[in-house]
Amino acid sequence: MTSPIRIGLIGMGTVGTGVVRVLQDSPEHISRQAGSEVIVEHVVVQNPGKQRSIKLPSDKVSNDFARVRDNPEISIVALLLGGLEPARTLAIELLKSGKDLVTANKALLAEHGPELFGVAHEMGRSIAFEAAIAGGIPIVAAISECLTGNRISSIRGILNGTSNFILTKMEQDGSDYHEVLSLAQAEGYAEADPTMDVDGTDATQKLALLTHLAFGQWVPWASIPRFGLESIDQELLRFADELGCRIRVVADACRSKDTLSLRVGPALVRKGTPLAETQGVFNAVSVAGHAVGPLFFHGLGAGQMPTASAVVADIISTVVGRSAITFSQSGLVGTMPNPATVVSGSDSPSFLRLHVTDQPGVLADLTGILGVEGISIDSVIQHPAENGENGVPLVIMTHCCSATAIDRAVRALDHNPAVTSPISCLPVINE
Amino acid sequence: MTSPIRIGLIGMGTVGTGVVRVLQDSPEHISRQAGSEVIVEHVVVQNPGKQRSIKLPSDKVSNDFARVRDNPEISIVALLLGGLEPARTLAIELLKSGKDLVTANKALLAEHGPELFGVAHEMGRSIAFEAAIAGGIPIVAAISECLTGNRISSIRGILNGTSNFILTKMEQDGSDYHEVLSLAQAEGYAEADPTMDVDGTDATQKLALLTHLAFGQWVPWASIPRFGLESIDQELLRFADELGCRIRVVADACRSKDTLSLRVGPALVRKGTPLAETQGVFNAVSVAGHAVGPLFFHGLGAGQMPTASAVVADIISTVVGRSAITFSQSGLVGTMPNPATVVSGSDSPSFLRLHVTDQPGVLADLTGILGVEGISIDSVIQHPAENGENGVPLVIMTHCCSATAIDRAVRALDHNPAVTSPISCLPVINE
Repeated sequence: MTSPIRIGLIGMGTVGTGVVRVLQDSPEHISRQAGSEVIVEHVVVQNPGKQRSIKLPSDKVSNDFARVRDNPEISIVALLLGGLEPARTLAIELLKSGKDLVTANKALLAEHGPELFGVAHEMGRSIAFEAAIAGGIPIVAAISECLTGNRISSIRGILNGTSNFILTKMEQDGSDYHEVLSLAQAEGYAEADPTMDVDGTDATQKLALLTHLAFGQWVPWASIPRFGLESIDQELLRFADELGCRIRVVADACRSKDTLSLRVGPALVRKGTPLAETQGVFNAVSVAGHAVGPLFFHGLGAGQMPTASAVVADIISTVVGRSAITFSQSGLVGTMPNPATVVSGSDSPSFLRLHVTDQPGVLADLTGILGVEGISIDSVIQHPAENGENGVPLVIMTHCCSATAIDRAVRALDHNPAVTSPISCLPVINE
Repeated sequence: MTSPIRIGLIGMGTVGTGVVRVLQDSPEHISRQAGSEVIVEHVVVQNPGKQRSIKLPSDKVSNDFARVRDNPEISIVALLLGGLEPARTLAIELLKSGKDLVTANKALLAEHGPELFGVAHEMGRSIAFEAAIAGGIPIVAAISECLTGNRISSIRGILNGTSNFILTKMEQDGSDYHEVLSLAQAEGYAEADPTMDVDGTDATQKLALLTHLAFGQWVPWASIPRFGLESIDQELLRFADELGCRIRVVADACRSKDTLSLRVGPALVRKGTPLAETQGVFNAVSVAGHAVGPLFFHGLGAGQMPTASAVVADIISTVVGRSAITFSQSGLVGTMPNPATVVSGSDSPSFLRLHVTDQPGVLADLTGILGVEGISIDSVIQHPAENGENGVPLVIMTHCCSATAIDRAVRALDHNPAVTSPISCLPVINE
């Protein structure tokens, strides 16, 4: 056993509290795993006087960032603030002061990844961020350490527990989106401001990081097409069910020879497949590699303890020297030879839900528009009209077609006078 | 980029061929991941003249083990032989010659793990064995690198693809065990001698290794109670289905305060749970940790390329120095403080299928025996007799009870004259 390792913590919110809890919970266990005692040397918080559910000696808690940055005994810092600033500035200062970083802040890395990874590389430091993607699921390690012999062809995940909770609750209870969102907020599964979760931002930032890890290619997250949950209603859920599917918000990265297609948004997923059966706040990730074939991971993607599990594992990996190796081999710094062309969404069957006026010739007109784009139809569902107010719902499932063809077709359909409300168009995932 | 890393391969069967294929397939990719070119310097096989599906220069293939062992340029050796000898002797010689090892041989490690890990430790070498358990699923890395902040409470897996293939095929086709086994052999999913797969040996050896990794405790695999597939018949599958369950061969390790309960064998698993929905040759592992909660992994547990995926990842991790760190921190060498008492199976509900004579008072008698052991009954199924030859089938589901109580009850029931054939007793897994 070597001399103790002293760490600093920046931020003592939900995750920071969980990290201290895990470290204090079984110090012998942590020491054994890290090969050294791991001591929380100093914690920087906004309000040092605040009552907390964990015990820390008062001289170890302050709002003085310099006490971490300038302490040469602290070699590793867990940066557990959300948001971009001051997180970015603090991260750079810490790296420049020679600290290795561990963070759960996906927004920070999705926005400033190249800059931060670059500074870490220059300084010979590491940034570990298992907790930033899918919480307790070790997907970062899987990609950067365990699938290194593989050419990865796709990553498909349910990366936002809040939106999955809302969707599965809507499915089970038949309640509408806004009702379930309020419930989720009351139960603590959704933030007071849930925008980043329900509009797909959070999942898209995670997908950008996974893309960087798996394909060595940095794609600005904001350039990835993303679709939110708000447009999902009970009628869509019922049609999906009728077609043997569930609706899930899927973050999808698919690499073919020359292209990398990316998309985040609701999709129809065939019932019985692992992604479709991912319920409530759980996260799930499917990865396919040319040697390993299909791999699937499922676990808690957020919450105090699952996230702390990942942060503490990263702290231990940093202590023992694994993070430094993995970071330097990860391809996060520098550029890949022959980057792929980034495209929106991949070829797939599509599900279209339209509301149309109930008159002769409409179906022929609309399916004709799909024909012009070379899109062939797998099946059509039209039930007798219940209330004519909004038009008759019409569902069309297409055979596999390109994302651009279906986009053009939807735009054309939207202009058709028989279409009475905005069209819902979701890709269909059968595996 | 540093100077090339030269590796040796011992054995060129299915897995060895896959490893060479992955390495030759995309050498630039492998070099990038490993930070050095990885060169297969020498391959030792029994019959160097044999025609192979991969190309290797003839001067790099021989049956001369010394050409690997005594070549100081070779630093890493993938030992891809099955069975115990000569694998054990070669492993020791290689470690003593200063080579790091990568292996997929679970029987070797389950039998001689402490000896080999000890030699590696003495020599300052590492043994990496991701491929030995669940093939392409990175469960070894997950436990030894990603869950290090957790106290793991249970590991539950489908670790043998052959027996899972047989079970799911029996379920789907209604065919009997021997028919499906012949089919599996014809399709290459079962060996000519499938004993180790179908009697639970293979899964038990993997469970012993997982137990060592997760709980730091070495348990001789042969001391773990194991049950094979042969006793599973269509009547059992039908009753399981009627009770909302599937039958799966589950390898189960459960750690409570003072005990470690281990068992491998068929169990009823509630439909809809991830283990129950693991089909065909797939493997799956559930792990629960106090911080991370429930984690689930699913993927191909055997076969040339998935196994090669794990071997190559281990080769790369050994090249970059990750394996050395992980091995030295893994707790595979030395003994854990306060080892748990090992017990057979954990508390669970039980499923009993009996064949009984069709006469008054039998049900009261038999359920009375359960009552004596303090086992209470959840439900009973008795259908009208179809043919009396073998007695009437009677199914009893118990509430949760201890493995020892149910064992005693089964022995007592077996002696009851109303019971006309051997009793099937399977634990029930509801999550």
